[in-house]
Amino acid sequence: MKSFRKELWFQVPSRRGLINVTPQVEDALRESGIQEGLVLVNAMHITASVFINDDEPGLHRDYEVWLEKLAPHEPVSQYRHNVGEDNADAHMKRQIMGREVVVAVTKGKLDFGPWEQIFYGEFDGRRRKRVLVKIIGE
Amino acid sequence: MKSFRKELWFQVPSRRGLINVTPQVEDALRESGIQEGLVLVNAMHITASVFINDDEPGLHRDYEVWLEKLAPHEPVSQYRHNVGEDNADAHMKRQIMGREVVVAVTKGKLDFGPWEQIFYGEFDGRRRKRVLVKIIGE
Amino acid sequence: MKSFRKELWFQVPSRRGLINVTPQVEDALRESGIQEGLVLVNAMHITASVFINDDEPGLHRDYEVWLEKLAPHEPVSQYRHNVGEDNADAHMKRQIMGREVVVAVTKGKLDFGPWEQIFYGEFDGRRRKRVLVKIIGE
Repeated sequence: MKSFRKELWFQVPSRRGLINVTPQVEDALRESGIQEGLVLVNAMHITASVFINDDEPGLHRDYEVWLEKLAPHEPVSQYRHNVGEDNADAHMKRQIMGREVVVAVTKGKLDFGPWEQIFYGEFDGRRRKRVLVKIIGE
Repeated sequence: MKSFRKELWFQVPSRRGLINVTPQVEDALRESGIQEGLVLVNAMHITASVFINDDEPGLHRDYEVWLEKLAPHEPVSQYRHNVGEDNADAHMKRQIMGREVVVAVTKGKLDFGPWEQIFYGEFDGRRRKRVLVKIIGE
Repeated sequence: MKSFRKELWFQVPSRRGLINVTPQVEDALRESGIQEGLVLVNAMHITASVFINDDEPGLHRDYEVWLEKLAPHEPVSQYRHNVGEDNADAHMKRQIMGREVVVAVTKGKLDFGPWEQIFYGEFDGRRRKRVLVKIIGE
């Protein structure tokens, strides 16, 4: 069994934003030389997500509006976590969107359906944060 | 390390529906011959889910009502994604229910608690769609 | 490839509660002797979650309030599942928070960002329930 590890770093300039990280994960897979196995891609921070969905700007705007409805940022005082912080909503948004994805590796490629793309979902940005890519297989 | 891959195909006749896919995943596991490892089961489409919960019709009806409350299909015009499409809500429902499950394989079986069953959750059906089963182990 | 399996048992005295299970998962990892690979940690019950987030009591209280808003326990009669049962809401809360986490193992440690901690989320407690830890790697 082979294993491979790589960190990806991101700095989203606003509080929230989505970044398509599929090319970086594909690079990591190529670098690993692994042909058959599993890739884990996870946010290393607890106010961010890694998820798989469509790379379509309208949808991304819809996610923003929808997450804000399910877990509003304001008023920040509604959350007990927000003592000297204002990111409790980010901890909720991340639970909806998920921490991680596990993707099959087949013949050296991400084994994806036609529209699957991996995103980093930032809900408390404006600082450097990390995504972990761990690949195991052969 | 061994690896095994299989696609399962489904066509749900209505827009939404849940299918228990546990028997097909068990078949794939038997076919693989893998005794110890991990199974990844994921929707290959971004308006569908794979998740684990109870095979109980009342609960499935509750999920339908609940998801419709959290991410309503109508009015379709409320979503920017719905330009020539009407499935934005399906992209949200799928995030709540999840894209994938990872299940332990122990002594050649899915290592499940008493009520765990794997479901394909369709939120934009009426066409053929796929689930990927990838198994790695020994 | 090596594999290792361990069950963790919990009994939460109230209906709902969160338990930090990171130390037990770390123990299991040490016991396994695995240096590089993946750990799967999943609830074996369908009214409980395993998830990763912050060990901060204010946030845990916020999750309780938030989940109760998204999937209220009462009135229990609003759910068709609640025929002789009263835990339909727990099946929904668990979908929001997730069934499982997959964590990378690097140099014999859980490969975590600074604040990541693994929690067992109980939504229908007052009885003994299990979490599965399955580790594969080398």
